[in-house]
This record gives sequence, structure tokens and C-alpha cells, in this order.
Amino acid sequence: MGYVTETEIRVRYAETDQMGVVHHANYLVWFEIGRTNHMRHLGVSYRQLEERGVRLPVVEAVLRYRAPARYDDLVRIRCWVRRAGSRLVEFGNAVDRVEGGRLLATGQIKLAALDANDTATTIPTGVRDALVVAPDPVRM
Amino acid sequence: MGYVTETEIRVRYAETDQMGVVHHANYLVWFEIGRTNHMRHLGVSYRQLEERGVRLPVVEAVLRYRAPARYDDLVRIRCWVRRAGSRLVEFGNAVDRVEGGRLLATGQIKLAALDANDTATTIPTGVRDALVVAPDPVRM
Amino acid sequence: MGYVTETEIRVRYAETDQMGVVHHANYLVWFEIGRTNHMRHLGVSYRQLEERGVRLPVVEAVLRYRAPARYDDLVRIRCWVRRAGSRLVEFGNAVDRVEGGRLLATGQIKLAALDANDTATTIPTGVRDALVVAPDPVRM
Amino acid sequence: MGYVTETEIRVRYAETDQMGVVHHANYLVWFEIGRTNHMRHLGVSYRQLEERGVRLPVVEAVLRYRAPARYDDLVRIRCWVRRAGSRLVEFGNAVDRVEGGRLLATGQIKLAALDANDTATTIPTGVRDALVVAPDPVRM
Repeated sequence: MGYVTETEIRVRYAETDQMGVVHHANYLVWFEIGRTNHMRHLGVSYRQLEERGVRLPVVEAVLRYRAPARYDDLVRIRCWVRRAGSRLVEFGNAVDRVEGGRLLATGQIKLAALDANDTATTIPTGVRDALVVAPDPVRM
Repeated sequence: MGYVTETEIRVRYAETDQMGVVHHANYLVWFEIGRTNHMRHLGVSYRQLEERGVRLPVVEAVLRYRAPARYDDLVRIRCWVRRAGSRLVEFGNAVDRVEGGRLLATGQIKLAALDANDTATTIPTGVRDALVVAPDPVRM
Repeated sequence: MGYVTETEIRVRYAETDQMGVVHHANYLVWFEIGRTNHMRHLGVSYRQLEERGVRLPVVEAVLRYRAPARYDDLVRIRCWVRRAGSRLVEFGNAVDRVEGGRLLATGQIKLAALDANDTATTIPTGVRDALVVAPDPVRM
Repeated sequence: MGYVTETEIRVRYAETDQMGVVHHANYLVWFEIGRTNHMRHLGVSYRQLEERGVRLPVVEAVLRYRAPARYDDLVRIRCWVRRAGSRLVEFGNAVDRVEGGRLLATGQIKLAALDANDTATTIPTGVRDALVVAPDPVRM
């Protein structure tokens, strides 16, 4: 059975914008932190994957923003696998404020495997086996 | 009839990542540049809108990445209105490489009007009238 | 006697550039994380300071880059006070890779106090008292 | 005699922070835009330089912030060569608001040539010859 990993980060001043809240583009960066950490937990370092010539660029992203994050907030990035195929994997993400537990954003991020020549390739078997799907822990 | 505006930007070194292409989070920033410019063309400066106490935070974003942008590429950001209601507006975006015209990414960005107290509000009438819907110029 | 605080962060994929290392602008962001944490340790939350109408914009920055940081590296941001006056404070920063302890960069960041009207002001006494100078722990 | 190039950019919303002005780290990105453009004017594309295996990482940066830039401001980035040696080059930068011409920031950025193995190397002769020093157009 797949599982949900959690990574805590503190909101950086540089991540805010003049609306006084975190700029919406940073959530894609946060989701990526969640994926990196999730793969490390699965025993599959993304850094090592790249060193073996396999890259996983994002091909699709869906984000829903529910409440703003603010400077110095401690936020929790949840990450899990939603779908895994031979060439594609979709991660789910949820970001909550640690204090109070309010859900701030959710996201679905689809990645496709590419080899060193930018050609679509299959996800290496060892990695593929580790990408076990988990049910969404929140409503997406 | 609504129309499609175009803004050209040159890819910054800082926008690339170690995959050698533009990091996927930057497209949200580029779409925002497109929206700012689109609203200026409509005679509705977003800066002035904020100065009048109305903000338009992003509540939903859908991005499709089709081909990578690279450092120093000249890219064209197209922007148009897809839907406009009393409280919500959805913009469409397409990014192409100018040389060759290849479509790199598309996006749909939904914004909701908030007043100075973070309460949902209606989009000012003058702005609302300017947000005329245009058909998608590319397949989303 | 002043002291040196330490904050550990893991390098984000989005912080790399096509040179395969962390883009140099991110060190200013990292130094800022170090300052936020240093002030919290001093019992002076920068967030609270801003809520009281005092801001501390950066007026000068000097950075020396000694070795590159890479994706997924765990790095340690050290921060201390180098000089403190009634209107200006200068922080020192050093960034090391945790594994192996190599010094990656150093920086000197000067901030000036501004009130809500963007006018130079004095740093509040309580804050000023907490900003005790420490000797540089590394050669700047 | 060396010369000063100018590049105009419009301030992005994402470049602001909750102080309501451009976050100070972005000036390093803007200076880099100025350098890219300056080298293109010299007939030396930085992109091509990298494709030939020579990289020019930043080894030192000094920034002075004089007045804030704001969202939607049109700003002009000036760039020139301050010093050029066989292995090092130092660029000067100045950023002004186009409307009114106010000087917002200045910077001195030192770069060192590295080959594909991260070893110090000499700047290729063709490039070196193009890097003609110009006197500072503003007080640094």
C-alpha cells in the first residue's frame, strides 16, 4: 500500500509578494520539495536517477489555492503517488499550515520519463516498483 | 469580441534549472506577465486595481508543458479571457518560442476578487466590462 | 557576547540553474532565512517587527562565492551580527555544505530601519539591545 | 573605448515581496540580464560561450540599494565592463526607474572562467578582446 510523506518548511520572506502572502508560483516549488522527499523515502533518490540519465520533467500541473500562506508560517507539504504507469507518474500534493492545520493548497503533478536525448523512455523498473499508489488524503 | 494580447520576453539564466531548461514554476510567472499586459491593453491597470483595494489572487491553475524553453530564447506569451463572471475571471495563456513558433506551454488561470479585508467581492463594473471573452487560439 | 546561529536547509531543485549548481541569487534568500532565524533566537521576531510598523530593507550586500552548492545538498546557514547602530545593522553570513563542512559562500548584509512612511527611523530599543555583535567565525 | 549597454524590463508582480517593493535578490537576476545583453552587443553570446565549454560563474558581488523598485515600473539596467583580466572579468551595473530617471541600485559583479571540469581557465581570446573597460557612468 502506498503512503503519504510529509515535509515541513518555513515560509521565506522572498516567497511573499506585495499581496502580503506567498506568491502562487512557489507552490510548484514546494510540491517539488515534497516529491524529492517522497522519492528519498521510497529509497529512490531523484538526484541519483538524474545521474543515471533519466529525467522526469513535469508535463502537467493542476493547482487549487484554498487559503494563503504567510511569511514565517510553518507549512507541511504532503506528497503521495496518485497514478503510476510505465512512462508517466502523477503525484498528489497538499499543503497545510502546521498551526491550526488549515489546508492551503492541493495539486496534481504529472511527470514523464525522458532519457539523456530528450526521448520518452520508461521509468526504470526499480523506481517503478517503488511508486505505489495511495488514496488521496484530502479532497482534490 | 475579446482579443489575444502578446508579450515577448527573453528567457533569463536564473529561470533555467539543472535539466538545462526553464524550470516549470516560471510559467506561472510568465502567465502573470501576460495578464498584467493584457489588462493594461484593456485599459485596466492591475496596479491601479490594487491601489483601489481590489485584489485578484489566483484560485486555480492548470498548466500543460509541451516543449522546453531554453536560456536566451525569445518567447511570446499570449493571453486572453476565457470566462468572466461577477466574482471570477479565467485567463488563458499560451507560450511559444518566437523562432520557429513552437508551442511550449498552455495554461488556464482562475482569479477571484477579494477586497481589502480578504473577503470575496465583485469585480468592479468598469473592469468587468473590459474582460471580454475570446475563443482559445490554441488547443488547451 | 553575541553568538552565531545555524539553520539547515536542503537545496531545492528550483534553486539550481543550467550550470548544474545553485544560482548565485539564492544566497541572498538563504542569508535572509539565516537572519529570520537569528532574530527569532534573539527573541525578536522579524514578523512582529513588521507588524509594529518597522521594516528593515537591505541597503548593501557583499557576497563571496567559494564553492558551488548542488541539488539536494544539506547546507548550513550561519548568521551573526557584525555591527549594530541606532539605524543600521550589519549581519554576517556563512554557508557550508553539511557533509564535509566545506565553506560555500560568505556575505555581509547591511539593513536600515524604515517606518511605515518609508522614512529612516531608529531600531526599537528592545531590538537594538538584542543585536549583540559577535566576531566573524570565518574569514570574510 | 568600452561602452555602457542598456536593457529595459518591466517589474514583475512575482518580484515584489510583502514590503510592497522588489525583493533585493532580484537585482542579481537583473544584473545578469544586463550582462547577457551586454555580451550579445559585444558579439559574444554567453549561450555560445557555454556551448563551447566555458562558464563564467559569479565569484563576488557587491550591491548597493538606493531606492525601491515597484510592481509594473519600467526599469533600465545599465551594464559595462569595469575590469578584465585573463581569468576574471568585473561588470558594473546600475538600475534606474525609466520614469523620472531615479537611480535604484548599483552593483559590481566579478566572474571567473571555468572549463567543463570546473577548473580555472583563461577567458577565450576573442571574448577577452571584446571586454573593453568603460568608466563608471554613476558613482558606485
